[in-house]
Amino acid sequence: MSQFDDETAVSALPDGRYEGMVADSWNIGDNPNGGYLLSIALRAIAGAGAHPDPISVTTHFLRPGTPGGRADVEVDLVRRGRTISTCRARLAQEGKQRIEVLAAMGDLADESAGPALTIPAPDIPHPDECPPRSGDEQGVSLPILDRLDTRIHPAQAVAGRAGVAEVSGWIRFADGRPTDSAALPLFADAFPPSLFSLLGDVGWVPTVELTVHVRRRPAPGWIMGRFTTADLGSGRMLEDGCLWDETGALVAQSRQLALLLS
Amino acid sequence: MSQFDDETAVSALPDGRYEGMVADSWNIGDNPNGGYLLSIALRAIAGAGAHPDPISVTTHFLRPGTPGGRADVEVDLVRRGRTISTCRARLAQEGKQRIEVLAAMGDLADESAGPALTIPAPDIPHPDECPPRSGDEQGVSLPILDRLDTRIHPAQAVAGRAGVAEVSGWIRFADGRPTDSAALPLFADAFPPSLFSLLGDVGWVPTVELTVHVRRRPAPGWIMGRFTTADLGSGRMLEDGCLWDETGALVAQSRQLALLLS
Repeated sequence: MSQFDDETAVSALPDGRYEGMVADSWNIGDNPNGGYLLSIALRAIAGAGAHPDPISVTTHFLRPGTPGGRADVEVDLVRRGRTISTCRARLAQEGKQRIEVLAAMGDLADESAGPALTIPAPDIPHPDECPPRSGDEQGVSLPILDRLDTRIHPAQAVAGRAGVAEVSGWIRFADGRPTDSAALPLFADAFPPSLFSLLGDVGWVPTVELTVHVRRRPAPGWIMGRFTTADLGSGRMLEDGCLWDETGALVAQSRQLALLLS
Repeated sequence: MSQFDDETAVSALPDGRYEGMVADSWNIGDNPNGGYLLSIALRAIAGAGAHPDPISVTTHFLRPGTPGGRADVEVDLVRRGRTISTCRARLAQEGKQRIEVLAAMGDLADESAGPALTIPAPDIPHPDECPPRSGDEQGVSLPILDRLDTRIHPAQAVAGRAGVAEVSGWIRFADGRPTDSAALPLFADAFPPSLFSLLGDVGWVPTVELTVHVRRRPAPGWIMGRFTTADLGSGRMLEDGCLWDETGALVAQSRQLALLLS
């Protein structure tokens, strides 16, 4: 069993809720990564009989999670249609809700024909030429880097040097677990904030809300990510992201509303 | 009272729910516009004591609404923080849920200083030089055009002619009601699908999920909108939108997942 599958596992309780554990191995500093908490909630959604692929997942981050503690997840199947299941999920620890999730689950096995438009993958250096993400840029420890092999474009690897709010690079599970559609919401929340490239160390940039659209199931191998911030005002930013697989196929898009506190 | 305020009004019931009416005057063909249904839900959210401005609103469209029928809205205040209220809302008619809403409400009165990035407004012709939106492009009647004065960029006003999946133009309430932050989620869902400009008449493009981020309170006057689709595959498209006020300030961004059925 992979680290990711093991550390996002949930058990169904007799009352219909789900129980899991928040490991301390996906932390950003003292707090579990938000995409990791979301991944636990998505396991409960899968357990509730929804369609397999997260075609639209919105998460509101209410409070940081507690690493090393039990998680209680409630899932409501709002509507199960023929092609889409709409689900709500709430993850709580110690009686306090941490995240609220609203998801449309679909089935991306069907790759029908028809007109197509896509966003081409940028031309960035091979993963071997991209340095691993370092915790230094945030001045905090990043246990999550033992779980996710994360490489940053060499021109964007030092905070404040790129002159533009863009971070790109590569990501995969450190233990070799294949990337599937369930991994993409996590990968969409696992790069350093793109504002680092422009502003340097901006401290913790708490996410208010993250929406991820998985667009297709990824081919095996690395996932390339590019994240940009074009809209920042009054301490509130929108960051857009795209993820591509090794064949250059666009596999997910993301957008998050986050706060610039400093 | 404006048409919009009148036709989105809700009353609090003794059991904590809200009751309203879905007018038939905001229809696209036979169905109420999705942004209009959302606006009714947002009135209930406002009634529940949330912060005033919708800084992140995600709506999942489960079933079309029924024009001319009563609407029942339930609101849960998930968390009321100092600066953000997180709310869920469900709008049902005849016992069947039509939309599910997850919103972060904030207060955009505070325009503090600090670093800023923005997306500049495109240079499009003055509203007087943009023809009114016509129902012809969809082959359906558009009662909503009596409520919303909607002008389309002359190069994009005929379906299939622009050669690119982009629709831009201007919008305001037909009765002169001022635009405020509560109007922007509606305006983000009131232009023709941007795929019309590329593919011509594509029929009904049902929205699975729409997320709107209001970025600032708009100045009086027209709102400019630009909507583009860069990602379409297997009949599923992501359309991105930006709204600016007459001063050129970016006031909202939107993204929706929709289905191309034809």
